Amino acid sequence: MDINSFIHDLTSIVGSQGIITNPKDTEIYNTDWRQIFQGNSIAVLRPQNTQEVSDVVKLCVQYDVTIIPQGGNTSLVGGATPPKQGNQIILSLSRMNKIRNIDTIDSTMTVEAGVILEEAQNAAKNAGLYLPIVIASQGSAQIGGVIATNAGGNNTLRYGNAREFVLGLEVVTADGQILHNLRRLRKDNTGYALKQIFIGSEGTLGIITAAVLHLHPLPRSTEVALCAVPDLQHALRLLHLFNNYNPAALQAFEYISQKGMDLVCQHFPELNFPLETKAPVYIVVELAIPAQGDGLRELFETVLEKAFEEEIILDAVLAESETQRLNLWRFREEQSESQKLSGANIKNDVSVPISSIPEFIERATQACEAIYPGIQVAPFGHLGDGNIHFNLVQPANGDSKDFMNKSHDLMDAVCAVVYDLEGSFSAEHGIGQLKNYMMPSWRGGVELELMEKIKQSLDPKNILNPGKIFPN
Amino acid sequence: MDINSFIHDLTSIVGSQGIITNPKDTEIYNTDWRQIFQGNSIAVLRPQNTQEVSDVVKLCVQYDVTIIPQGGNTSLVGGATPPKQGNQIILSLSRMNKIRNIDTIDSTMTVEAGVILEEAQNAAKNAGLYLPIVIASQGSAQIGGVIATNAGGNNTLRYGNAREFVLGLEVVTADGQILHNLRRLRKDNTGYALKQIFIGSEGTLGIITAAVLHLHPLPRSTEVALCAVPDLQHALRLLHLFNNYNPAALQAFEYISQKGMDLVCQHFPELNFPLETKAPVYIVVELAIPAQGDGLRELFETVLEKAFEEEIILDAVLAESETQRLNLWRFREEQSESQKLSGANIKNDVSVPISSIPEFIERATQACEAIYPGIQVAPFGHLGDGNIHFNLVQPANGDSKDFMNKSHDLMDAVCAVVYDLEGSFSAEHGIGQLKNYMMPSWRGGVELELMEKIKQSLDPKNILNPGKIFPN
Repeated sequence: MDINSFIHDLTSIVGSQGIITNPKDTEIYNTDWRQIFQGNSIAVLRPQNTQEVSDVVKLCVQYDVTIIPQGGNTSLVGGATPPKQGNQIILSLSRMNKIRNIDTIDSTMTVEAGVILEEAQNAAKNAGLYLPIVIASQGSAQIGGVIATNAGGNNTLRYGNAREFVLGLEVVTADGQILHNLRRLRKDNTGYALKQIFIGSEGTLGIITAAVLHLHPLPRSTEVALCAVPDLQHALRLLHLFNNYNPAALQAFEYISQKGMDLVCQHFPELNFPLETKAPVYIVVELAIPAQGDGLRELFETVLEKAFEEEIILDAVLAESETQRLNLWRFREEQSESQKLSGANIKNDVSVPISSIPEFIERATQACEAIYPGIQVAPFGHLGDGNIHFNLVQPANGDSKDFMNKSHDLMDAVCAVVYDLEGSFSAEHGIGQLKNYMMPSWRGGVELELMEKIKQSLDPKNILNPGKIFPN
Repeated sequence: MDINSFIHDLTSIVGSQGIITNPKDTEIYNTDWRQIFQGNSIAVLRPQNTQEVSDVVKLCVQYDVTIIPQGGNTSLVGGATPPKQGNQIILSLSRMNKIRNIDTIDSTMTVEAGVILEEAQNAAKNAGLYLPIVIASQGSAQIGGVIATNAGGNNTLRYGNAREFVLGLEVVTADGQILHNLRRLRKDNTGYALKQIFIGSEGTLGIITAAVLHLHPLPRSTEVALCAVPDLQHALRLLHLFNNYNPAALQAFEYISQKGMDLVCQHFPELNFPLETKAPVYIVVELAIPAQGDGLRELFETVLEKAFEEEIILDAVLAESETQRLNLWRFREEQSESQKLSGANIKNDVSVPISSIPEFIERATQACEAIYPGIQVAPFGHLGDGNIHFNLVQPANGDSKDFMNKSHDLMDAVCAVVYDLEGSFSAEHGIGQLKNYMMPSWRGGVELELMEKIKQSLDPKNILNPGKIFPN
């Protein structure tokens, strides 16, 4: 391949502002957010519109160069990071960052792929609407990546994953055609649901350039409580109790383990622990409705009183102010940070059927403690939808290198329990290049065969995001 | 092909109880529910389990016989009716009718494809849970068909289409392999979302044999009102008002046109019209929550009072009893029947963006009245999700044959407006063989090309439900 002529042709499509070739400037694009993966690319392309994306893809087909679509690069599984070898470009959607339209009657928003999630959330809010994808990386994650990875988050319980918000998609296919499918319809049974195929496919089947998102009414009353619960069986009973009042008011139902709470209290002493009782399990519960002052707090108190009466909870605090509300949430939000401050740690983003959570936590904890005595098992996460971040922290004052040497054994032990309980080894972060080696044992046989057939039919030259999802 | 040996081999798979070859007995399977389509088949197969389905498919591949999967045969678009020509069998899932499992903690139900929707609803209810797919054909529709057509219904507004309930699927592929994907997970981002490809594909990509459905808490407080509204713009404002209290309590928001109401009153005089005012637009509103006596009626009254104050509604009646509640619903539910009793009629199952409903109804009405003076335009349906059944009834005392001769002109006129407003020509019933000729003009170009690629990759011999979705 004549690289100079390829770069020349690319530049004539996107202009000199739309291409980066200087290795010093491409490095950040070549490296994933966690700095686990470091790849290479001929250039980083930053097209300004869908036609440019299409032209770039056609040129890459012609030159036999593969394409790594990239949004905020925060997948955590190296989903948007190029491989070390091979001829590839990175196609960053970051300059396609226009909010094309917000319709308050349809409750829809048409956005380009490069819009930062938080900016989309704010634009919705300004229009009196709510885009309920709440994830830690929302300040850098881009809509295209959010959809391509079917992102989840704290509010999945109520609103679903990214998939549930997507009414329409605009996609550039592997041969550079443009699928114009930006319909704003809630119901449309006209042939195969093409958008569903691209959502969650991690950029391996097409490049998402724009989307129509379905927005929800903006919550104007929000109430948050932190509950101390004797064990996980009781946590499930608490979930059941809230569901049987008004499930739709239940915005989040988040789990914090005793160890997880201890680590936060240790590293963030300014967050005065607000309960009288320490407990094996804590739950952050958030209720929210659009109407102001419509009895939400009374509903919350009623359910909590019932939970006390039935001895489902040991203690609870209901936030009295916006400040206290944000404070209570920080016990959950600082889980990752406090673990990082405690030394080397290992993340497991897994899910099991909700009913199996107590058994999962118990068995996985025992397995890890057997492998590495002194290990700090600090699970937390989205109990309401079965998605647990089963995180492991090195022993206090232990050796972090020695701990990390056991990371594969520990992850395998956790996954063995998940597998046995018919769970998933990647609940919300996807596969990328971190977990593709696990696909044959978890999703092998007919499943992987069907996925390969679809990949082959939509991207026969394997030009889009090679080395992701499928085992190498 | 040696038919006798084929029949012999089929019988050895399913037993003599599992095959019907007598033309007198196969006729009902060969004819669609509306009796518009009449096809032929070599035999009707009624396997008892997934392995038998797999073996039948493999045998058909061997004999080069195509397969028409059939559930309740109530798609309304001939989606499960065989063609007239060719060698095909009907594969009825009706004997695979076991509810395998209900889990009240996970809120899931594992059901075989042949379970009648109403039976699944009842089983969920007995377990204190709710399966919220409510459609007119629920007494005969089977779960497999409900999923294969991504059925909608009255409650889509709140709970989504069938797609939103499916956590896992078991599918027999076009080469007779079994995809075991009956996971009960809310979150599982591990490669392509295969289930999404089969949902809504009308049996053209695989045969759904079982599913895991996500159930909701059972509503224990339900309140229904019938509202008289000056026009459709005000109906949208009413929808907005309910959404801005607690959207999740809003279970249904159904539109009845003035003409539609008049026809019901004429044919069902026993349903005493409960309002003081006749109006251009009526809305049936249903609110529901799981908790008993938790202020739902007060909420409803608050919103209705506000609607009066703001002159959004002219009149309203809130049902005082279960009997009155069912009675109010009948004004909506008898729309189809009263139209049938009024003579020849034409159905249009279309959707547009919610904000475009007023313009759609006005323009489509004018177009139809221009084509056929005296026509009775009687739209109704799921205003809350943009899905209008734009039904047309012959003039009173008119000639039904003459009216039906204009049916294509009338449907084309309605569809032209829908197309212009970026709507869908099939909102919830699918394509089948009634509307496949429309696919190139509505979903042509890249969309149809991608659908064909997927069909080709998953069913290269075109053995599953040929002649559906794709134009012949």
